[in-house]
Parts: sequence; C-alpha cells; structure tokens
Amino acid sequence: MASPSGTGTYVAIDRDACAERLARALADLSTGPFTDPAAPITRYAFTDPYLRTLDYLSERLSGCGFDPRLDPIGNLVARNCAPGIAAIGLGSHCDSVRGGGRYDGILGVLAGIEVARVAREHGFDLPFQIVSWVEEEASGFGQMLLGSRVASGALDPRALRDSVRSLDDGRSFYDHARSAGLDPERLGEQPTALDDLAVWIEPHIEQARVLEDAGEQIGVVEAIAGYVHADLEIRGQADHAGATPMGLRHDAGIVAAQTTIALEQLALETGRGAVATVGELALEPGVINAIPGRARMSLDVRAPDADAIEEIVSAITGLATSFAERRGLTATATERQRVAPTPLDEHVVAALCDAAAASESRWRRMVSGAAHDTMCVARHVPSAMVFIPCRRGISHSPAEYASPVDAACAVEIVLNAALALGAR
Amino acid sequence: MASPSGTGTYVAIDRDACAERLARALADLSTGPFTDPAAPITRYAFTDPYLRTLDYLSERLSGCGFDPRLDPIGNLVARNCAPGIAAIGLGSHCDSVRGGGRYDGILGVLAGIEVARVAREHGFDLPFQIVSWVEEEASGFGQMLLGSRVASGALDPRALRDSVRSLDDGRSFYDHARSAGLDPERLGEQPTALDDLAVWIEPHIEQARVLEDAGEQIGVVEAIAGYVHADLEIRGQADHAGATPMGLRHDAGIVAAQTTIALEQLALETGRGAVATVGELALEPGVINAIPGRARMSLDVRAPDADAIEEIVSAITGLATSFAERRGLTATATERQRVAPTPLDEHVVAALCDAAAASESRWRRMVSGAAHDTMCVARHVPSAMVFIPCRRGISHSPAEYASPVDAACAVEIVLNAALALGAR
Repeated sequence: MASPSGTGTYVAIDRDACAERLARALADLSTGPFTDPAAPITRYAFTDPYLRTLDYLSERLSGCGFDPRLDPIGNLVARNCAPGIAAIGLGSHCDSVRGGGRYDGILGVLAGIEVARVAREHGFDLPFQIVSWVEEEASGFGQMLLGSRVASGALDPRALRDSVRSLDDGRSFYDHARSAGLDPERLGEQPTALDDLAVWIEPHIEQARVLEDAGEQIGVVEAIAGYVHADLEIRGQADHAGATPMGLRHDAGIVAAQTTIALEQLALETGRGAVATVGELALEPGVINAIPGRARMSLDVRAPDADAIEEIVSAITGLATSFAERRGLTATATERQRVAPTPLDEHVVAALCDAAAASESRWRRMVSGAAHDTMCVARHVPSAMVFIPCRRGISHSPAEYASPVDAACAVEIVLNAALALGAR
Repeated sequence: MASPSGTGTYVAIDRDACAERLARALADLSTGPFTDPAAPITRYAFTDPYLRTLDYLSERLSGCGFDPRLDPIGNLVARNCAPGIAAIGLGSHCDSVRGGGRYDGILGVLAGIEVARVAREHGFDLPFQIVSWVEEEASGFGQMLLGSRVASGALDPRALRDSVRSLDDGRSFYDHARSAGLDPERLGEQPTALDDLAVWIEPHIEQARVLEDAGEQIGVVEAIAGYVHADLEIRGQADHAGATPMGLRHDAGIVAAQTTIALEQLALETGRGAVATVGELALEPGVINAIPGRARMSLDVRAPDADAIEEIVSAITGLATSFAERRGLTATATERQRVAPTPLDEHVVAALCDAAAASESRWRRMVSGAAHDTMCVARHVPSAMVFIPCRRGISHSPAEYASPVDAACAVEIVLNAALALGAR
C-alpha cells in the first residue's frame, strides 16, 4: 500500500475529470426518476425517487469495489474492506427538502465516492466506508438527522418505532421501511453504520455566503454550532391606535422591536462565532389601527461554544423582561429546543487543514452554523467536515448551486487528509 | 320657550332616572332580536337585527314627539320640528362591528333621544334633529362612515351604486337597500340628513383610556385627528440563521424593528397630539431558522393637525430608507389611505366646555384619535362631540363598557350646551 502522505507528498488529482464525473452524476440525479418531477428536487425516505437514488449510488459504489447494503432503517452503508477493519468514513445524505436543490447532501455522498475512486486510480489501497444517512432533512417524517440519530443512539429505536410517522400518510416509519423491503425490527441485531470507523469526514455545501464572499474554495469545519430555539411572548394591551395617547400605551410590538435589536447587539458583542436571529414575529390583533396587545417572536441563538449560547439566551431573556416591565408589560421566554455544540476532532481537522494548505487553494477553518449528520457521528467517531462554496448562500431551493470544480478540489483535499490519517 | 342658559342658569336633570332609562334601552338592544344572537353584538346595515333596532329607536322617537324616517340610503332622521327650522342635530350610529360592544354608536343615539326627552320634560321647546347614520363601522359593506359620507358629499352616489357591495353575499348596497324597503335611486331628490341643522353634537364612548385614567367623566372633543395609513416594505435577503455570520446579513426584521422604535420616538418628539403605531408586521419567510428577507409593516400616523402628520410620515420614510440602506436593504413606503384632520367648531366646543364646567364634573378638552361620522357632518354644519369614558379603553369587543351614569352626565351637559346654542 502506497502512502505518500506519510512522507509529506501531496497528491494532485485530475480535478477536471473528477468535476466532470460529479457534474454528470448531479445532472442524472436532478431529473426523473430521481426526484418528484412535480417539484424538483424532492426526494425523501422510501419514496420512489429516493429508492431509485439509492440504487444509482449503489451501482456506482459497486463499480468502485464497494459492497453497498441498506441497514435495517435504510442508511446506505458501503465498504471496500472486510468487517473489523477501521475504515475512513465518508458521505452525507441523499434526501432533499421538498422543492430543494441539487447539491445539499447528495454532493457529499458523490464526493465521498469520488475520493474512493480516485484513491484506487492512484493505487492507494485505503479502507473506506461510504454512508448515505437516511432522512436528514425531515421531509418525509418530520424528524431531522433521523438515520444518524438512530445509529448514534441519540434517538431510541422504540421512539422511532412508536412515534415517527409519515407527514404524507401518517403511516409509521417502520411500516414504510418494511414496504421498502427493510427489516427495521432487526435494528440492534446488526452492526451499525458507525462500527469499524477510524474517522469520519462529511463534505457538504456551505449553505451560506462566507466562502463565496471571501473568494475561498474550501472550508474546514472545526465545530458545528449548537443552538437554543425559544419563543418569547410579550403581553401588553391592545388599544385603539388613534385614540390612545403615546403615554398610555402598552405596545407589545415596541418591546418586540427593542428585543430584536438587542439580540443582534448581543450576538455582535459576544463574538466567538455566535449568531442570533428573530425569524418569526406575530403581532395581535395585527391590524393597522390597533396597538399590538401581544407579540410572539422566535429566538434562534447559535454558537460553537455552549457558554456563548447561554450568555446570549440569559441576557436577552433579562433584557426582554426589563424592556417589558419598564412599560408595564410582561415577557415570557419558553425554550423550544436545545442542541449542544459539537466540537470536531482536532486531529481530523488538522489533517484537512494541512491538505488544504498544501492544495494551494484559498481556504479557511470555520464553524458550521447549520446542523449536519456529523453532529451524531462525532459522538462516537473522530470527525470533521469540509464545506464547498454555495452560490449566494442559497440552499433548500431550486436555485441552489455549487461548482463541481470546487467539489473536485474538496475531493482532492479529503483524499490527501485520508492518506495522512490512514498513515497514522 | 324657556331659555335659562341665556341667563347663565345651569339646568340639572334627574341623572339617576336618565341613567336608568339608558341602561334599560342598552339592555334591550343587547339581546335578540336586536343583535345576531350567535355573536353579540353584531348588527349592521339591512340585517334583521339592524332593521329591528331602527324600529326600536323610531318607536322611542315617536314617543318623544319626533317624526322618524329613513332617508333613501337608510340614515334614520327624526325631527321634532317643521322642515326649514334650523335644528340642533344630535346622534351617532346604531350599527356595530361584528362581535362588538353594547355602547359604540348606539349610546350616542340613545343619549341624543334622552337630551330631547329631558328638554321636553323641563319644558324647553328646542328644535332637534336626531340622526342614526347607516353603516358607520363598515361591517356590512366594508366602507366606514358610509351614511355620513354620502350625506356630506364625500362619497359620490354613483360610486355608492356601482361599487359598494355586501361582504356577506356580494349583492350591491342598492339591492340590499331596496330589499329593506328603501328607494336609493331617489337619493339627491330629497333633503339630506344634514339639511336644516344649526349645529351638530355627537355623543360617543371614548374608546380609549384617557378619561378613565384621569378620573374624568366627560371629554369635549375639539378636533378629530386625521391620519395617514401606509405600508412599508423592506427587502433584504433571506439566509440561513445558523450559517450566516452577523456581518453578512441583510435582515429585514432588524430594519423593521429600528423603524418601529423610531416611529414611536417621532410621535413623542412631535407632540401636538400626534400618535403613531405599527399594528401589522409580517416577516418572510417567517420561520425560526431563517433570517427575514422581507418585512412588511403598517404605519398609522395621526394628529389633529395635518402638518404634524406630514412631518412624521416624511421623517419615518426617510429614516426607514436610511436604516435599510446602511445595511444594504431597501425600504419602500406606499400610502394606503389619507384622511385630513377635522377641526371642530369653536363656538359649539365652547358651549359644551361652559356646560361641562358648570356641571361640576371632572372633564377635559381633547382630541378624538378615532374617526367618527362627525368628520363628515362638520364639513357642512358647526359640530362638536362629547366623549363618555370607556372602561379600560376596550371597544369593538363584547367586553366594552360605559357607565350609564356617565352617559346621563353627558346628556345633562349636551342639554345645557343645546340651550346655550339655541339661544344665540
């Protein structure tokens, strides 16, 4: 087995050929039968477009010396080496949101396959395990990261069996899995998609504008931000907008506005990669000539470290209360969801950074603000991600675009990192 | 004809008896058949509850020596004197919003009848014309102040005929009027509800908390605020709330928040009775994990003088544009409706103030922030209004409440003003 990275040699691949293969596969998978033709790209667990996509990927994997299989819940797992060998895990997911883009998820699986193909072409006998996680986008069953959560133990199989149902027809996930020829009852009897992995690297489009705006070709993700989602309810008094003097108002909309501005300020002051957003805001009664008596707003606070999230959430709750009380209103925050940040593995991150530096591409270390399957994988396996630039940051939309040339650059960098990690 | 006010004598009425009569009439009209029993109080033009209410009022008026009639479009007009005599006009409207209160409108008509009744009981032979304006609340046909706008010439009869349709069944106002036994085609042939009026006084509940908060029993309205209603559209860019750093955002919600706060500040700084409100605010896409790419907010700016309105509207438009441009967004304001302020007649206002002062009640001169039929009447007839306190400022709601004792105080004050005005 050749291992040039052990000697610090950087392997350059034929990026043009790789980009062409990726572009062709992306084009294939962007039309019927691999998407619902009524709303491309729409493809989610156990639908016909989804199962056809798994077939497509399996065929490619077989052609590269892999042995693709579906685990009992539908994660596609393919190895080019015997069980028990600690493989380099690569992949992402191949489902989409409804009416989504051509790249989110699937590009990471295709890039993983390309890494393995190119490794073989270059004569490197590296052990790989490619995974396409089932139901990352929650489009079919309303639960994000479903396959990786089950595999990592974050979601109990009983909960999966008893409470996860199709958004389309209300039938259970288990029922749908059985209809697709799977045997979900055997979950737990078999090795999981996380067994025998030495490391895990997920390539994914960035879904934001950081790389594009900086003119960079690749991002090495060192952490996935955690977040708190909360609802803030402000109760004042609805009064006639014409008849109520300014001094007699208890305007919930003003307190919501003050809180919105304070939240932005807090995120800026906190720094450390923190971001915070008010995405939902509803005023009641919500008519032009009534002072809002009630406002309900969402808070989305994210950061790669839990303390930063906590600082912001605690500060904004206090500020909202004080804005409200100063005007004779009340403000109540209710947590909706909390996800801890995921620090990624420094050794894997460093291997990717070294490879990126050697590639002479423009690159950066960065934080993922969005959630990914790697959050679950990283609980058990040393993990990292690479981000591929995403045009104008537009994702979850038919307008989504990522350059196959950038993806080929990622393939080369991941290959070199894999060689370095395989050599340790 | 006795005219004690000419000699400065203040006439005290039996307020308890008056309050009792008002309370009884309000109770009568708060149940079937005078409201839609499914959603009390719901009563609007040409519905059965509305027509039954007109019958009830007509019967009361006949009992007080009046000759009640409906004009061609359904305004109830009742005189206790011959045509040609310049009468003292009193009244308001008897329709309600859907699911409204027991007092808004109808209390003014009942109070007007009480003034005439008490005047007669005291032996004063004053010429009165009581009016109940049709369709003030826009509940039936979507057009506010419909009856008074037509009578005052603010709404062209052709526009009434051609474009005003029932919200319930789409049939024209004319059709509905005909079904109610009216002859709308004769509009213009007959004297209007504004003919032969020396002055006009409309008693109405305040619909705000100024009087209640100050512990005052009556307000003399010296002006009705005008207003501008506008929509402000802010366009930024919708991005992923997790993946987009604070410095790369074009968050339309933040600009909306800044504009909301600035609008309050402008109203406070402008003073002169100005008020300003953001009652509607919609963010798009409106989900917790997306930065708002678009915000649409309403602006409601009111003041008793047109310059104050203009100053605020012009300033807030400029500020919104500058808030937006500083962040790379755009803001566009579109006027929805503009109504000029209505100064009321100083002579009528002074007569009411003199009477209020002589009544030894706590009172104030004030501005009406809400629109009333008197805005239309005042175009042709020297006019004023009196406000009766409204509990907690709640109106357009089944929780609406005004004290019949306060209403009886208003009756006494209006009677004394009428005596003073009748004596001029």
